[in-house]
Amino acid sequence: SSASPRRALATARAPQTLFDSLDTFTDRHVGPDESETAFMLSKLGYDSMESFLSATVPPKIRVADSTISNSSIPALSESELHARAKELGRLNKSFKSYIGMGYHNAVVPPVILRNVMENPAWYTPYTPYQPEIAQGRLESLVNYQTMVMSLTSMDIANASLLDEATAAAEGMVMAYVASNQKKNTFFVDKAVLPQTISVLRTRAKGFGINLVIGDASTALNDEALRSDLSGVLVQYPDVNGLISDYGDLAKSVHSAGALVICATDLLALTVLKPPGEWGADIVLGNSARFGVPAGYGGPHGAFFAVTEKLKRKMPGRLIGRSKDTMGNPAYRLALQTREQHIRREKATSNICTSQALLANMAAMYAVYHGPVGLIRIAQKVHFFTQLLKSSVELLGFKVTNTAYFDTLTIDVSSVPEGAQLVHAAAAMEAINLRRIDDKHVGVTLDESVSRTDLMALTNVFLMASRRDPAVLESLPLPTQAAFPDELLRTSEFLPHPVFNTHHSETEMLRYIFHLASKDLGLVHAMIPLGSCTMKLNSTSSMIPLTWPEFGGVHPFAPSEQVEGYKQIIKELESDLCKITGFHACSVQPNSGAAGEYAGLTVIRAYHESRGEGHRDVCLIPLSAHGTNPASAVMAGLKVVAVKTHQDGNLDLEDLKAKAEKHKDNLAAFMITYPSTFGVFEDGVADACKIIHDFGGQVYLDGANLNAQVGLTNPAVCGGDVCHMNLHKTFAIPHGGGGPGVGPICVAEHLAPFLPSHPVISTGGNKAIDAVAAAPFGSASILLISWAYIKMLGGNGLSESTNVALLNANYMAHRLSGHYNLRFKNSNGRVAHELLIDLAEFDKSAGLKVTDFAKRLQDYGFHPPTCSWPISTCMLIEPTESETLEEIDRFCEAMIQIRQEAEDIITGKQPKENNLLKNAPHPLSAIVLSDKDWNRPYSREAAAYPMPWLKEKKFWPTVSRIDDAYGDLNLICDCPSVEELASS
Amino acid sequence: SSASPRRALATARAPQTLFDSLDTFTDRHVGPDESETAFMLSKLGYDSMESFLSATVPPKIRVADSTISNSSIPALSESELHARAKELGRLNKSFKSYIGMGYHNAVVPPVILRNVMENPAWYTPYTPYQPEIAQGRLESLVNYQTMVMSLTSMDIANASLLDEATAAAEGMVMAYVASNQKKNTFFVDKAVLPQTISVLRTRAKGFGINLVIGDASTALNDEALRSDLSGVLVQYPDVNGLISDYGDLAKSVHSAGALVICATDLLALTVLKPPGEWGADIVLGNSARFGVPAGYGGPHGAFFAVTEKLKRKMPGRLIGRSKDTMGNPAYRLALQTREQHIRREKATSNICTSQALLANMAAMYAVYHGPVGLIRIAQKVHFFTQLLKSSVELLGFKVTNTAYFDTLTIDVSSVPEGAQLVHAAAAMEAINLRRIDDKHVGVTLDESVSRTDLMALTNVFLMASRRDPAVLESLPLPTQAAFPDELLRTSEFLPHPVFNTHHSETEMLRYIFHLASKDLGLVHAMIPLGSCTMKLNSTSSMIPLTWPEFGGVHPFAPSEQVEGYKQIIKELESDLCKITGFHACSVQPNSGAAGEYAGLTVIRAYHESRGEGHRDVCLIPLSAHGTNPASAVMAGLKVVAVKTHQDGNLDLEDLKAKAEKHKDNLAAFMITYPSTFGVFEDGVADACKIIHDFGGQVYLDGANLNAQVGLTNPAVCGGDVCHMNLHKTFAIPHGGGGPGVGPICVAEHLAPFLPSHPVISTGGNKAIDAVAAAPFGSASILLISWAYIKMLGGNGLSESTNVALLNANYMAHRLSGHYNLRFKNSNGRVAHELLIDLAEFDKSAGLKVTDFAKRLQDYGFHPPTCSWPISTCMLIEPTESETLEEIDRFCEAMIQIRQEAEDIITGKQPKENNLLKNAPHPLSAIVLSDKDWNRPYSREAAAYPMPWLKEKKFWPTVSRIDDAYGDLNLICDCPSVEELASS
Ligand SMILES: Cc1ncc(COP(=O)(O)O)c(C=O)c1O
Ligand SMILES: Cc1ncc(COP(=O)(O)O)c(C=O)c1O
Ligand SMILES: O=C([O-])O
Repeated sequence: SSASPRRALATARAPQTLFDSLDTFTDRHVGPDESETAFMLSKLGYDSMESFLSATVPPKIRVADSTISNSSIPALSESELHARAKELGRLNKSFKSYIGMGYHNAVVPPVILRNVMENPAWYTPYTPYQPEIAQGRLESLVNYQTMVMSLTSMDIANASLLDEATAAAEGMVMAYVASNQKKNTFFVDKAVLPQTISVLRTRAKGFGINLVIGDASTALNDEALRSDLSGVLVQYPDVNGLISDYGDLAKSVHSAGALVICATDLLALTVLKPPGEWGADIVLGNSARFGVPAGYGGPHGAFFAVTEKLKRKMPGRLIGRSKDTMGNPAYRLALQTREQHIRREKATSNICTSQALLANMAAMYAVYHGPVGLIRIAQKVHFFTQLLKSSVELLGFKVTNTAYFDTLTIDVSSVPEGAQLVHAAAAMEAINLRRIDDKHVGVTLDESVSRTDLMALTNVFLMASRRDPAVLESLPLPTQAAFPDELLRTSEFLPHPVFNTHHSETEMLRYIFHLASKDLGLVHAMIPLGSCTMKLNSTSSMIPLTWPEFGGVHPFAPSEQVEGYKQIIKELESDLCKITGFHACSVQPNSGAAGEYAGLTVIRAYHESRGEGHRDVCLIPLSAHGTNPASAVMAGLKVVAVKTHQDGNLDLEDLKAKAEKHKDNLAAFMITYPSTFGVFEDGVADACKIIHDFGGQVYLDGANLNAQVGLTNPAVCGGDVCHMNLHKTFAIPHGGGGPGVGPICVAEHLAPFLPSHPVISTGGNKAIDAVAAAPFGSASILLISWAYIKMLGGNGLSESTNVALLNANYMAHRLSGHYNLRFKNSNGRVAHELLIDLAEFDKSAGLKVTDFAKRLQDYGFHPPTCSWPISTCMLIEPTESETLEEIDRFCEAMIQIRQEAEDIITGKQPKENNLLKNAPHPLSAIVLSDKDWNRPYSREAAAYPMPWLKEKKFWPTVSRIDDAYGDLNLICDCPSVEELASS
Repeated sequence: SSASPRRALATARAPQTLFDSLDTFTDRHVGPDESETAFMLSKLGYDSMESFLSATVPPKIRVADSTISNSSIPALSESELHARAKELGRLNKSFKSYIGMGYHNAVVPPVILRNVMENPAWYTPYTPYQPEIAQGRLESLVNYQTMVMSLTSMDIANASLLDEATAAAEGMVMAYVASNQKKNTFFVDKAVLPQTISVLRTRAKGFGINLVIGDASTALNDEALRSDLSGVLVQYPDVNGLISDYGDLAKSVHSAGALVICATDLLALTVLKPPGEWGADIVLGNSARFGVPAGYGGPHGAFFAVTEKLKRKMPGRLIGRSKDTMGNPAYRLALQTREQHIRREKATSNICTSQALLANMAAMYAVYHGPVGLIRIAQKVHFFTQLLKSSVELLGFKVTNTAYFDTLTIDVSSVPEGAQLVHAAAAMEAINLRRIDDKHVGVTLDESVSRTDLMALTNVFLMASRRDPAVLESLPLPTQAAFPDELLRTSEFLPHPVFNTHHSETEMLRYIFHLASKDLGLVHAMIPLGSCTMKLNSTSSMIPLTWPEFGGVHPFAPSEQVEGYKQIIKELESDLCKITGFHACSVQPNSGAAGEYAGLTVIRAYHESRGEGHRDVCLIPLSAHGTNPASAVMAGLKVVAVKTHQDGNLDLEDLKAKAEKHKDNLAAFMITYPSTFGVFEDGVADACKIIHDFGGQVYLDGANLNAQVGLTNPAVCGGDVCHMNLHKTFAIPHGGGGPGVGPICVAEHLAPFLPSHPVISTGGNKAIDAVAAAPFGSASILLISWAYIKMLGGNGLSESTNVALLNANYMAHRLSGHYNLRFKNSNGRVAHELLIDLAEFDKSAGLKVTDFAKRLQDYGFHPPTCSWPISTCMLIEPTESETLEEIDRFCEAMIQIRQEAEDIITGKQPKENNLLKNAPHPLSAIVLSDKDWNRPYSREAAAYPMPWLKEKKFWPTVSRIDDAYGDLNLICDCPSVEELASS
């Protein structure tokens, strides 16, 4: 590729192409260049991309090239994309929102914004399933857990759920499960957030729970209700800002044998008696207020904490402290490994991707402010709220909630058309208040409110009151808290060193960088996790995300203020429909699993609408991802497994037999395509036809959509609904374990059922209730996928898929002489990932999949997906973003490890003390003297098995971690002063 | 610091303070909190900060506390600062500039923007004087050198100079020196950039060079001129866009025994015959067009390349390849070490801080685009320029430069008042063109020009022409280059692997992170370099820098378009005057050394204006930084050294004697205060008085201003002018070796002489010529210091200085039992830094300063300044941003190293093979087997001498580097394909 300007200028390229933008994205996104793809094709024996594709994808499901091309989706260059994003961003009006209802304006400390949220070292890693190369974010997630435990005074907290509403639903189901699914009634106080109630409705329906909404202060005396009661949910402070003492309520609920669930606010808990101290069993809420932008509704982390008794039943990920083989402390995911915690049809929760990045931002926020800083913030917010209350009262209005922290419900009926006047005055000040009714408005204050803001806010009420400003001159300054003394927090919180150390920006910066240095992300090497599609998360797509035009928007802002967001969502939905071949889209679900659940719930609603509500059987292949059966159960379906053949293909006979057997009740069939075994099955269309023939609907799990774009689509395959993981195919960074977005696309007949929202209108005309707290889910990160699609355009999208397939097949080709490639199609081709089986090594050398995986860490690579969908296998997905060179490096590592295994097979190396069993080798091992090293191989062989590692190597920071020890000695908070002192 | 919300809310803080902003900056910037400062004060035996300060700073030079307080400089919170910056940014009108004249619109690849320019791992390190912990940026700077060498076809290039104009001045002086300072005439073609000519005027004056400006195509035949000619400077393409064949000119100049210097453009050189191929001896220019924003004039990197013959005389930093003690390849600064390359009074250049960060951005740009991408860009720019030419010709205008690359000079006199009409039409399209005269306008195109932009540009001429748009329909498409075939580049460029590998964003990202992982920056640990003030570079101050409102502005944009910039500069100048006690300020100088030169030149002009042009003696203490005498020489002054006493104080007797001796010709005295020995001398005011008494002016080197702010100031000390290093005291990040800003503040009588600019009006009414290319120097980064000052406010500024002094004194206290503290004042106090003398260890253990420094690397610290200002010493400056904990960690490391030295003194460890002599210990040493390790200490002792290193350690990536080998075998480009293949 040497440059010859003479030729270039003299013989001139076709002048037309000289008009093209220079910063086209496809060249940057797709790893291999033309010569590399040509090389790989020739290695595989093809003379063109098309001949390769024909051999790979079944012809009968191919769509025309024009379906996804630059004429259906035009391509923007990187700079054009930014110009367009700016233009749309300007359409979002920057009103200051005091709407509250669970959402606040956040102040993101700049050091966290730049070095966590905008830092690919933090946002590109995967979920920390490989703890030896993930100690940084694991420590930070433990900080998150500790922060939640300490502020709520609960025994244990997890590492985040998707949002407050779904967290509440998880709580409800836990209560139900705690009653052994015997007590059917769940009571919700009417002053719980409306979006939470809507999501509870959806979830209650799936589980057959009887949801009762009422006034918790009176309704719980009803004996009939008490006898069937599994749990009660209250909000503290509630949606109207009222703070109630729930101590007696808790006693009463406990005496009925039910659980108390409390949705709450972390900032308020710095000064309010924590729920753990008045008897709550489960405490949850949104932690976004701790430094995560509103972002038109998300992504935000939800927290979830429980009492000791409930800890082993908690949904979501829990990080625990354990130790490594050398006895050093080490963090890892507790009580679960990658897929095992998705307990298939026994599951009551399907959560997989959560909100790691946002949890980490919130944890860092607490680390930076520390307990004293957090109290300062709470004090100020409370003080300003008190001042506002005094002001509105001097102006003749009445605050209806007497005990409050940051939220006032104001009766403005002293002035005719009061609410209307107030909102009109607010609009003049570019302020949004909560719209309650004709007589009441709501105001919620937060950390971002400055003295000037407070004056503007006061001015709104002054204008509406038509009073003389002079009345405000007598404003009294508050002298005590605006809630009963008994509800003042008396207990200390966050005494741990980590929350009392990093309070200068320099220290904070170093802490953030130190943790990042322990974690392998896409900034270091390929992360070839099968089924996860860890591709480039481009800077261009990430940049607009942190523009204030998008960050500062409240999810319940009036429609005319969010024209930019609406346009982006519209365009994204439309493009996703083109790509899937479907008719309509909902972006509300916050993860792939949430998409599955939403899609199946839509299917159920469809059946019901046709009087076939009894259809409740869902067929699912054994090879399916654990979330599939879990989602089915949550949607109230009964799971029936379908077999696969030896060759990996679906057993169509078995499918037909089961479909026929359950024909009266057949609701759905869930299928992943290409299959989780990494091949495009020929029979997919036939399978779908069988299901349709028996009255069922087909749910297509879109985790593998990266293999389809432009070549085929779920509609052509025969599906009725699919979800997409925007955090896979559409390049939202995985955030070290979240956020994600799992929109669903549906065929026309299902469109009316797409989810609604209780505050902002969404969904079809026969919509199911909400599946997430925010109307458009994790709205702000939709920008990333929107940008990804717009920058690639149809041609780039198709090329990405083609190269993803080619990279995987080239890799399969290189590895297949050395490893057992488990499945391929009749032309010898795999799809966009490949499954290799390591079963043979167990017998011959006592080596398990894990040993190979950990040894790959020594080579600087993130291991592929292990032991799923087959326990003895590795599922490898390179994606289109990896260059030939990186793929070759990976193959060479794998081949060398195969040779290391050979040395064990042949007895050159002992079975119990060898390079694989002892892997990974951190520096703490390398520095040992020869005597302590005590291994039949050199440090060089351990650390630098390949020459390129000397130039560039990512080091695991601990040796292999003892999972059993950690699960037995479950410790999920960060070390205390005493522990640190004694270590 | 446990949090008791009960107390907090119930007994309420003074309500007034509850109104305060929460995100105040001082708490974040200053490392130690109240309890830590109290602890340090008590350790030093003081009961208050004031009693400590009184013992530290001479009372007679103290200023009132109110001088620098929140009433003189009010404090903004971090969010208030951003709001204010946004407001001011909006005042900069976003016109698209085609003004050219050396400045272009840059397209910064987003992956470079986010991961280099916005990444503290890249922007916070110091100049790579410690190469073992700086291999990343050293490699990148070698890429820069290679890129320049290859594109210019020159033998060797340096790692950047300050800007094109000063680079040209360096070239002129090199030519003068090459003639053994015998030939006094330097010829400059009149089509060289006007700002370059202005800077040459200034510099020629200092050296007594006779600058002749004329038409190079004719003037050089003059025999008188030829006989005194040292060099000729031409611009290629020239300011009007004309490309000339300078081959014959070069021959003619060479035959006169003079040098040919060519200012050029790297993008043009991808298609133009490079100057190295037609005989240039020195080639220079601005590399900003390679992905560095215009930023209203800078910072930008200037490149500088010479022939083999001249290489050892080249100014600026040169990175070379050498090897470490283990034989591994390693980069380091060649031909010079920290201070040695500043050759005091023998110097002909004073460059110290350069433009490392910007050079690295440009190098990364070339790495990302590669030769093929660069040609694509050049092709498009050229093609669009050709189209524009055809268009304006169809519209009846005439392009006067027939051979061109991207710039047209257009004669618009075919229409009455043509130029006026064109500029008016341009304004309507929000476009700036170059204003030449009534009949001519200039247009320069660049990479950022899209098809739409080109249409808008064409439309400007269409409107002015009043022609029918139909004439444009016959627009011919160009078929060949718009310059003679002989000037087409035929040679290949950038064949090196590094420029042909990282072309996908994923690969680029990994390369950027890989290099960053080798470099110790403030993100890792303290960088206690004495005299360098490596303090927090806050995110808040960095964020606005990359907003388009500030990045996209051309330095010659009309004044009414840059109201935001003007306001910021005005405020900054005003605050700097308050801080220094002076009357007026110029922000033009691009570095501290450039400030010195500017200040001394102002002093000379002042003397001249009073008929005392003969005053040419400059007194400088022996302890001064090397740039001081170098700057004096450049300003045409004779340097006379002044002695210091044994106790470190200036020898006032000697000063007086020398001042008296030279009284007739005394021009100036340069002094650093507090002195480079780290103490506040009592006699500073007396010294200044002596100078004034003998008719001299006092230049105060402000490198140590961080010790003065709010306590004293250069005016009170008796100075007439000072420079500030904004990249020290005022928190501009050092960028791994630049950028910097060295504004000067002056007393009222010197204000008329502040530097002018030939294009944009700056400076006083008797202004000297320009000292930098851009009117306001590195304008965009002035934002950082502006933000720093505004966020701290007067109180925070003073507190910063107080704590900087306290931290240094606490450190001196902790170290003084273990090391020989060289100087302190009569109360036992040092200033903001301390000098420890290691001379004793040479005799007792054969240990040099370097051995201690390299061993500190093993402890994860950046070593302090070594061997300056005293060769056996270390100068340590902690700054206010370091916490007590970090300072204690550093002291413990130093104390432990002292113990390691003791083991050598006592013979426990051998003199030639020990922890210090073998330091640093990279991983390549640690992995050796015991046999090869072969050292009388364990790997643990080498790598983890302190327990905290096991948790957090920064690893040197190579062992100690062999400087002598590198200087003998000078190789300054990156490895070729062949070399890489053979290694
Ligand atoms: C096949 C498949 N389906 C569903 C999911 C669940 O997606 P999420 O993690 O976004 O909930 C995954 C996640 O890896 C998957 O691989
Ligand atoms: C005392 C002193 N003067 C002048 C300078 C030169 O400043 P600059 O590197 O910005 O040119 C330095 C740089 O460290 C210095 O320490
Ligand atoms: O950079 C310095 O030489 O101080």
